[in-house]
Amino acid sequence: MNQAVQVFQCNDCLVVVKGKVNAITVDTCKKTSIVFDDLVSSMEFINCDRIQAQCMGKCPTISVDKTDGAQLFLCKDALDVQIFSSKSSEINVSVPQASGDYVEFAVPEQFKTTWTGKGIHTECVDKM
Amino acid sequence: MNQAVQVFQCNDCLVVVKGKVNAITVDTCKKTSIVFDDLVSSMEFINCDRIQAQCMGKCPTISVDKTDGAQLFLCKDALDVQIFSSKSSEINVSVPQASGDYVEFAVPEQFKTTWTGKGIHTECVDKM
Repeated sequence: MNQAVQVFQCNDCLVVVKGKVNAITVDTCKKTSIVFDDLVSSMEFINCDRIQAQCMGKCPTISVDKTDGAQLFLCKDALDVQIFSSKSSEINVSVPQASGDYVEFAVPEQFKTTWTGKGIHTECVDKM
Repeated sequence: MNQAVQVFQCNDCLVVVKGKVNAITVDTCKKTSIVFDDLVSSMEFINCDRIQAQCMGKCPTISVDKTDGAQLFLCKDALDVQIFSSKSSEINVSVPQASGDYVEFAVPEQFKTTWTGKGIHTECVDKM
């Protein structure tokens, strides 16, 4: 529970993390899947390409930075997760339904900023 | 007015576009400044690093994609601009005040996504 897992420069891998760890960082990986049980703090992706993550327990935070293509599969215990994303594209979140099926949602990746007369206002642009 | 300007692979340059053109694209440039009068459609930055833009007239849209460091100086006629940004960092917008001074605003670059029970909700994270 006090230890962190670092996954670095993996290609075409499946990494399974058993038990409860503090944090997992996946850095500069391609086409890599990671399956984990419980996290105390965060799951972090940085500089990745086409990655998948499947969470089997609690996970307070997922952060995705400089990553193109991320499939995040949540479980029921992880529905209160906060997902932070920056400089990334094609992030999808799959959420389990009562039926057991997953429904996929695309995370916005573009900002629209306008001047309000007093300051700037920025909103997310949803691709529909 | 029917012509577009392409600026490609410039380093340490100052580009001045006189008169009204349809669009300007600045692609793969570093430390480049662009000053332009009026635009019919859009000013676009892609794959740039530390760029500056100064608008002297109308400009409906500025888009910034895959760019680190953008200083956008607006004029009074351009305050209705829409700025679209994606996969970028350190974008600042400078807006003229009645006194003639500019006030600078930072454009958010991070998204926070949460599950609402029915779908996902994404908001911009302001750095304060």
